Amino acid sequence: MMDAVVRGPDGAVQTTAIESAADLAMVRDSDGVTWIDATGGDESALALVSEAFDLHDLSADDVRAGGRAKVEEFDEYTLLRVNSVKRRTDSWTVTDPIRDVSVGLFVGSDWLVSYSMEPLAAIDDVRDALVRGRGRIRERGPDFLAYLVVTTLVEEYFRVLDDLEARLEGIEDAVIDGPSSVTLEEINDVRRDLLAFRRLVWPTREAIATLALGDVTNIDELTRRYYRDAYEELVELVELTETYRDLASGSRDIYLNTVAMSTNEVMKKLTVVATIVLPLTFVAGVYGMNFEGSPYNMPELAWTFGYPATMLGMLAVAVILLVYFRREGWL
Amino acid sequence: MMDAVVRGPDGAVQTTAIESAADLAMVRDSDGVTWIDATGGDESALALVSEAFDLHDLSADDVRAGGRAKVEEFDEYTLLRVNSVKRRTDSWTVTDPIRDVSVGLFVGSDWLVSYSMEPLAAIDDVRDALVRGRGRIRERGPDFLAYLVVTTLVEEYFRVLDDLEARLEGIEDAVIDGPSSVTLEEINDVRRDLLAFRRLVWPTREAIATLALGDVTNIDELTRRYYRDAYEELVELVELTETYRDLASGSRDIYLNTVAMSTNEVMKKLTVVATIVLPLTFVAGVYGMNFEGSPYNMPELAWTFGYPATMLGMLAVAVILLVYFRREGWL
Amino acid sequence: MMDAVVRGPDGAVQTTAIESAADLAMVRDSDGVTWIDATGGDESALALVSEAFDLHDLSADDVRAGGRAKVEEFDEYTLLRVNSVKRRTDSWTVTDPIRDVSVGLFVGSDWLVSYSMEPLAAIDDVRDALVRGRGRIRERGPDFLAYLVVTTLVEEYFRVLDDLEARLEGIEDAVIDGPSSVTLEEINDVRRDLLAFRRLVWPTREAIATLALGDVTNIDELTRRYYRDAYEELVELVELTETYRDLASGSRDIYLNTVAMSTNEVMKKLTVVATIVLPLTFVAGVYGMNFEGSPYNMPELAWTFGYPATMLGMLAVAVILLVYFRREGWL
Amino acid sequence: MMDAVVRGPDGAVQTTAIESAADLAMVRDSDGVTWIDATGGDESALALVSEAFDLHDLSADDVRAGGRAKVEEFDEYTLLRVNSVKRRTDSWTVTDPIRDVSVGLFVGSDWLVSYSMEPLAAIDDVRDALVRGRGRIRERGPDFLAYLVVTTLVEEYFRVLDDLEARLEGIEDAVIDGPSSVTLEEINDVRRDLLAFRRLVWPTREAIATLALGDVTNIDELTRRYYRDAYEELVELVELTETYRDLASGSRDIYLNTVAMSTNEVMKKLTVVATIVLPLTFVAGVYGMNFEGSPYNMPELAWTFGYPATMLGMLAVAVILLVYFRREGWL
Amino acid sequence: MMDAVVRGPDGAVQTTAIESAADLAMVRDSDGVTWIDATGGDESALALVSEAFDLHDLSADDVRAGGRAKVEEFDEYTLLRVNSVKRRTDSWTVTDPIRDVSVGLFVGSDWLVSYSMEPLAAIDDVRDALVRGRGRIRERGPDFLAYLVVTTLVEEYFRVLDDLEARLEGIEDAVIDGPSSVTLEEINDVRRDLLAFRRLVWPTREAIATLALGDVTNIDELTRRYYRDAYEELVELVELTETYRDLASGSRDIYLNTVAMSTNEVMKKLTVVATIVLPLTFVAGVYGMNFEGSPYNMPELAWTFGYPATMLGMLAVAVILLVYFRREGWL
Repeated sequence: MMDAVVRGPDGAVQTTAIESAADLAMVRDSDGVTWIDATGGDESALALVSEAFDLHDLSADDVRAGGRAKVEEFDEYTLLRVNSVKRRTDSWTVTDPIRDVSVGLFVGSDWLVSYSMEPLAAIDDVRDALVRGRGRIRERGPDFLAYLVVTTLVEEYFRVLDDLEARLEGIEDAVIDGPSSVTLEEINDVRRDLLAFRRLVWPTREAIATLALGDVTNIDELTRRYYRDAYEELVELVELTETYRDLASGSRDIYLNTVAMSTNEVMKKLTVVATIVLPLTFVAGVYGMNFEGSPYNMPELAWTFGYPATMLGMLAVAVILLVYFRREGWL
Repeated sequence: MMDAVVRGPDGAVQTTAIESAADLAMVRDSDGVTWIDATGGDESALALVSEAFDLHDLSADDVRAGGRAKVEEFDEYTLLRVNSVKRRTDSWTVTDPIRDVSVGLFVGSDWLVSYSMEPLAAIDDVRDALVRGRGRIRERGPDFLAYLVVTTLVEEYFRVLDDLEARLEGIEDAVIDGPSSVTLEEINDVRRDLLAFRRLVWPTREAIATLALGDVTNIDELTRRYYRDAYEELVELVELTETYRDLASGSRDIYLNTVAMSTNEVMKKLTVVATIVLPLTFVAGVYGMNFEGSPYNMPELAWTFGYPATMLGMLAVAVILLVYFRREGWL
Repeated sequence: MMDAVVRGPDGAVQTTAIESAADLAMVRDSDGVTWIDATGGDESALALVSEAFDLHDLSADDVRAGGRAKVEEFDEYTLLRVNSVKRRTDSWTVTDPIRDVSVGLFVGSDWLVSYSMEPLAAIDDVRDALVRGRGRIRERGPDFLAYLVVTTLVEEYFRVLDDLEARLEGIEDAVIDGPSSVTLEEINDVRRDLLAFRRLVWPTREAIATLALGDVTNIDELTRRYYRDAYEELVELVELTETYRDLASGSRDIYLNTVAMSTNEVMKKLTVVATIVLPLTFVAGVYGMNFEGSPYNMPELAWTFGYPATMLGMLAVAVILLVYFRREGWL
Repeated sequence: MMDAVVRGPDGAVQTTAIESAADLAMVRDSDGVTWIDATGGDESALALVSEAFDLHDLSADDVRAGGRAKVEEFDEYTLLRVNSVKRRTDSWTVTDPIRDVSVGLFVGSDWLVSYSMEPLAAIDDVRDALVRGRGRIRERGPDFLAYLVVTTLVEEYFRVLDDLEARLEGIEDAVIDGPSSVTLEEINDVRRDLLAFRRLVWPTREAIATLALGDVTNIDELTRRYYRDAYEELVELVELTETYRDLASGSRDIYLNTVAMSTNEVMKKLTVVATIVLPLTFVAGVYGMNFEGSPYNMPELAWTFGYPATMLGMLAVAVILLVYFRREGWL
Repeated sequence: MMDAVVRGPDGAVQTTAIESAADLAMVRDSDGVTWIDATGGDESALALVSEAFDLHDLSADDVRAGGRAKVEEFDEYTLLRVNSVKRRTDSWTVTDPIRDVSVGLFVGSDWLVSYSMEPLAAIDDVRDALVRGRGRIRERGPDFLAYLVVTTLVEEYFRVLDDLEARLEGIEDAVIDGPSSVTLEEINDVRRDLLAFRRLVWPTREAIATLALGDVTNIDELTRRYYRDAYEELVELVELTETYRDLASGSRDIYLNTVAMSTNEVMKKLTVVATIVLPLTFVAGVYGMNFEGSPYNMPELAWTFGYPATMLGMLAVAVILLVYFRREGWL
């Protein structure tokens, strides 16, 4: 499945379905700017295009295999490979790493080829804008169209990062509520997703920097400023990712500390109970002994106020210990 | 809301409210240095200025959207985007990240445009100084005025960092007093704020470095030395931020250690009590047994000094254990 | 043991066993591309080749001793030293660091010498492909053959990394099941293997970058693009290694936390039991005391409902404490 | 308070107190090398000198305000700002960060101006050496005098670092003795001081590197080698600081581990006591029960050897448990 | 004590003891390559040599003082300062940082001066090889002799690192056996030694890189390749050091975890004992109470099977708890 969107010299935009090498040759040779959109297409589409536009073997391979974002210059075109991410709408319960789809953009002098294994919303959005649009999108060349795809992808990235931030905030709230409602695995999952996200964004940033700063085939001086803008947004994305990773580490520290504090609290309670009750039990044990038959053997047992005095003594010990514990701040 | 401050060739400074494109065209064409101040203005003001001074679409967008500090050169002007921070006067209870407001400074050959969504104290201070001032501020061009704005913002940064330092010191004192009066969240909040602050200062440093070192449109050789001065202060700000983050980590370590020490102390007390009382209770339990009817069954119970001897034996055990614990340093 | 594979100008490939310096001189002087394959050979083979192709003393030493991957240029040839890894088929129980075998590739203008102490599957695969193959492998020079060896090794690396990932996943599952089924040593072993793997891949990446970017003797402009492809795969390998190390650290954190949580759980159970039983035991001890002979001494013992009332009181205390513990979330 | 030390063309050194602009003009215009020393002086001295030697506004400001070490070149002179540290003689009880005093050295073609707010031993030492000295100090220009000041300051740094090392060693010994004699705060204080020290030395290293490597106004080719020597010492200082910070972290780990080990030891002791005594107490409790009136109710109590047998049984249990604990290594 | 080894133009090697400036002048002016070996010599030897070969004051100072490895070029010679390490033969009980001795190598056009405060095995080995040797050592200039010294020192480094590795392995084995046989201090000592070792190797690597890559006075193009080889070995040394530091950190983590696990085990045992015995003791306490004189007061005591029933009940409780603990995995 492959379409050609041709913007004629008069600015009129026309979409044609491409079904054969002949169709392709025709749109390639037409005047104006030609966009061959083969996203969501099969490999045969890529083979057709490779032949029609004389694409290098390796560059077709690169797009087919997917991978890190990159820019590669060839004599007649520049290959920009970027990645789309699938947005996660459900909040912080999702724990799979981010799924990404590579898209290859071949930027020629007056043509653009886009290819990926799956249909991509970002490509469709830009195509729709081109068909319906006015202004810059109808005046500029294929490098500007590629920029529009990139900037749409960057917006996708921001949405994914927003989801990650929402998950992170959920975790932060849960951590303060207590460690029972969130597990360390969830914190770890967010950190892993942030890592995966960073691995996605970082090479994109580098690739766009090449377009923004370097002297790249078919990238216009005027368009470079736009790429610079996209580059700055990518810089911000990377920085935010780093910040979120730091916040996730902070959450983990608080989480672990809560466990340690909890053990400490439990210990204090046990100590308070044991320290008060054990000595009293000892005293009760003493007066439960069966010594007898001598005036030296437990005369207290026969004293008139032996029992009340003992009970009062125990009470006094308990009160003194409680006061001590309160002073120590254990209650 | 937009004003123009025009310093005529004779050094006289005059302030005019701008209400239409015509007003703007008039002050633009007047001799001397013209400062169009649209801080706290609406977007229509920015649109008017963009047209009058022929500002690039993207540069107007950049200022409207705000973001990281940056310098961008255009043919006719240099855009400097910096950020003001709102100073926090209440001490270490505030936990929100720092709120910042972007301000765009367009530095032309003999004009300066300042724009932001909110009124800014830093801009007002420099305007007042220009209206009332003498000396360099009345002699130098728009690049020097922009420098004055930057240096006022840097002072703001230092005040914010002073607040962060005060919060950090409060935490350090509280941590040494004991973990009950401060929580790990507070330490984490300061670290987060320092992170946010660093994210603000770092690109500012980079942007000012560009002005101080590079060969930038409309930035005078003489003024560059001033920007270098501002750059050095920003370097110091970044370094201090790093130091404070390290100190915050140190506080966290002490805090966590206090919890561990506390558990250890509690354990020791419990062990001392249990280790002394449990054996004595056992002895009391033994003499509470009811064996009888044979001379081998608990003859101690009938000995004349059985009870005092038992009590003395218990006392001896307790004293020996206490001496042992003291030697071990547990008391 | 040493073979020569000669591809004549007509594209015919012929394999000859080399047994003497004369054999070597003959294949060296034959037209077309000559590949002297001395992998799995002895040092005498290397000595023969060194003399026949005039290899520098140090470069022969480098290959004999093995070590980090590197590229070294000489006047007549380029030496590429890379490392093969032995793939581990058994899953995450293997804990030895990765075993690697150095292979030296001397790339001349129309000859290639490969040498290593052990036979290598990667070399054999490329030789087989050359003998049987069609297309690029029969057209390109020795630099392309060396590239094929490199890319086969890179595939080996990916398989080793897949094994490491499998071990890591096994650990992650085991950690969540509970710390008894996996030990910290296993996690540490994976981290150590990842470290060893990174030490292997990193210099390979650097060496291939030299071939891909620099202007290296006997490396063709056309072949450089292929090395660039291999370079990108090595970049991805390094990044994955870093990610896995981060994941291993995460597993370790979860593991350690599980131990801490477990201690906390045990403490809570002990505290619940002790806090309920100890006071009740104290009460039982009180009524086991032997005070008598006075109306003030333990009159409760003779009350009609003394025993049932005491038991009910104990039950009430136990129930109140259980309710309290449930509210605290300890049950 | 300001002095001029003039070394005439004949090598004779003469010191004059400067009290007015006229004095200053006179020594400035005298032949030979003139050193205006205004350390410990007031701001008016700096103002006088600024006028006499035509110093840039900003460079005077820089020296007055103090701050990180730096080098700034001007048309007629080079400004070197370095910092003196006050040595701490009392050992590891001092916890304040290092106090530093900025000194500005203006190196002209045949004059040197030194300024700081406080008198500095380093300056006085070099002045004394100049007045009394022979050899290189009487032959070389103001750049060499500035080098002598720098090298004296570097010696000061080494002394401060020696003090920090002594504190660190004290801590290491104390940590091994046990955590009661040293606190985590002390370790943290040393780390903080090392951080402050590093913040002082690092920019000094950078500034001296500029003098040693670059092509700086008024710094002689011959003198550069001396600055290189000072640079190497500063590199060593920075490295030692890093090493000490690492050692401090090691001490902290040992300290924290000692606390954890201590808790573990305490737990073991408690467990040994409780595990032996609790079962025995239970047995004693059993034979303290009052069942009677039936041949099935506690016949043991009336057996002839009931009591000795019970006691022997208890002893046996205790011995078995002790043997078990010894085998487990808990005793 | 100072010797001269002169290799005449005919390749004959002759060793002369140098005792005066005249001796020195004579060997200096003789044809061929002259090596003045003053290792283990006194400072007067260095003074003599400095004068005879016109060495710069600072370079003599550098060698006398010792310090980090470095290369410094002078007009007539290149100074290479490297460090010998004293090998430790006793295994992992040694905890002192590595002791190093600086040696200065002055490489002239046809002379070499070596100086250090102590006799060095590395120097002696190379001298012996020169006196007895054949081949390259008798053909190449002083730069090659200096290389031989460097490569001998690098071998020394590898031996020291092997010792460190042996200590590390001993620690790893001991850590897995249990924390009682090794202490955290020993792990820390290895980390400290690795740190000291890294501080020694790193600047050596940098210095040799200068010789291998740069265009250094008196270092021959041919010899540079040999320095490159030494450089690669130093790179490997640095990498191994980093790896060992990482492994030491891993050992520390396992060690600390073992302590935490141990506390957890002890807690479980205590909890098992206390949770079983405490309730039973309570029951025994209940039937030790002395209620009487009413049919409601402890009728169980007089029941025919009261005692056996109670004992069976206790047994049942114990069995149920044991089954529960086994299910929880605590036994």
